[in-house]
Amino acid sequence: MAGAVEKKISELGITLPTPAAPIATYVGFVRSGSLLFVSGQLCLEDGKLTATGQLGGSVSIEQGQAAARTCAINLVAQVKAALGDLDQVVRVVRLNGFINSAPGFADAPKVMNGASDLIVAMFGDKGRHSRSTVGVAALPNDAAVEIDGIFEVA
Amino acid sequence: MAGAVEKKISELGITLPTPAAPIATYVGFVRSGSLLFVSGQLCLEDGKLTATGQLGGSVSIEQGQAAARTCAINLVAQVKAALGDLDQVVRVVRLNGFINSAPGFADAPKVMNGASDLIVAMFGDKGRHSRSTVGVAALPNDAAVEIDGIFEVA
Amino acid sequence: MAGAVEKKISELGITLPTPAAPIATYVGFVRSGSLLFVSGQLCLEDGKLTATGQLGGSVSIEQGQAAARTCAINLVAQVKAALGDLDQVVRVVRLNGFINSAPGFADAPKVMNGASDLIVAMFGDKGRHSRSTVGVAALPNDAAVEIDGIFEVA
Repeated sequence: MAGAVEKKISELGITLPTPAAPIATYVGFVRSGSLLFVSGQLCLEDGKLTATGQLGGSVSIEQGQAAARTCAINLVAQVKAALGDLDQVVRVVRLNGFINSAPGFADAPKVMNGASDLIVAMFGDKGRHSRSTVGVAALPNDAAVEIDGIFEVA
Repeated sequence: MAGAVEKKISELGITLPTPAAPIATYVGFVRSGSLLFVSGQLCLEDGKLTATGQLGGSVSIEQGQAAARTCAINLVAQVKAALGDLDQVVRVVRLNGFINSAPGFADAPKVMNGASDLIVAMFGDKGRHSRSTVGVAALPNDAAVEIDGIFEVA
Repeated sequence: MAGAVEKKISELGITLPTPAAPIATYVGFVRSGSLLFVSGQLCLEDGKLTATGQLGGSVSIEQGQAAARTCAINLVAQVKAALGDLDQVVRVVRLNGFINSAPGFADAPKVMNGASDLIVAMFGDKGRHSRSTVGVAALPNDAAVEIDGIFEVA
């Protein structure tokens, strides 16, 4: 039986993917005490990047926001894989947003809001997180957005 | 009655600002257990950025150091908002410095020292933190510096 | 008498360096509870950078991998300085890899594997970490790679 958070996710019309195993020696998440550290997630959907290239270049803010939203879905899919039940999330502690950016691109926070807004829609007040957002020169496979996170768990 | 850290801050001639609420769904800080995670702070003073653009470009190292110092003041203002009393800080655990940089700019640590030195001046030995400093392609609103932090609290 | 991890490191033909003290007010590591936060480590060997410049520019993927490996050695040297005995590491929780990158460089994960693979070779299953890898515009002293980490300790 789905918990409250998963019911909310379903109401949002979102199906959590099965997280792809990293093709390397690292892992998707590590729990240490009450903190769950989730690896950086790209804007992957069905194994394909939904947006590649730079904000302030070929990628529009709207496309970037959608990409950030996809990263957030992949973060939550990792949390689900770690915990089984998303109601075990006590608080979304931190999101770090890395936006593939042309020099001088100033609107990274607008892009990152695509992730922040979805996380709060999913988790309610428990989803209100601290965050840092920066514009980076390059990302894996030229993804437009990468986001990692720290979650407090029961 | 001000505590020892706030007395020191006052002696340094610094008045902590009231932290601006983020204009988004994220928050300025989240506490989880004994750790306080503070969101990335820009070099904002009275609602205006004190330096915009890139180090290695239009922003000098001295201007960057001043910007880093302002970010540090804003970090501490968030901690004050979280805790009320800055003497509740047991240790400044981590600072992450993101320096808006032209490719090849090599002096990000000098810039970041503007923040590190002030934090140690404020907190003494409890202020001696681990840190990472990197040069990023872009920052929100073209700010010259962004810094986030993790604090251990009583 | 060396512990199991240090024996493994020795078998890998690696001698841990004495970590250089940061030339600034920050420190190489801070422990908070069971978490050890290690400052960003550059690809320094005997006081000299093993690779400078950008991936996707003058630095090859192989050179970047070797640089990431060197960063990992320096991270572990900090952990050794912090704990004395590396067998006190319960888990490598997180590595953050910052790859000095030309815009569009897509292979940062391959570079970062130079660090991840070595950490797992050293620590075994306890070394399987979460990670984020991003391409940054610039790094201190134009280093090719910087990596920081969080370790759970006994």
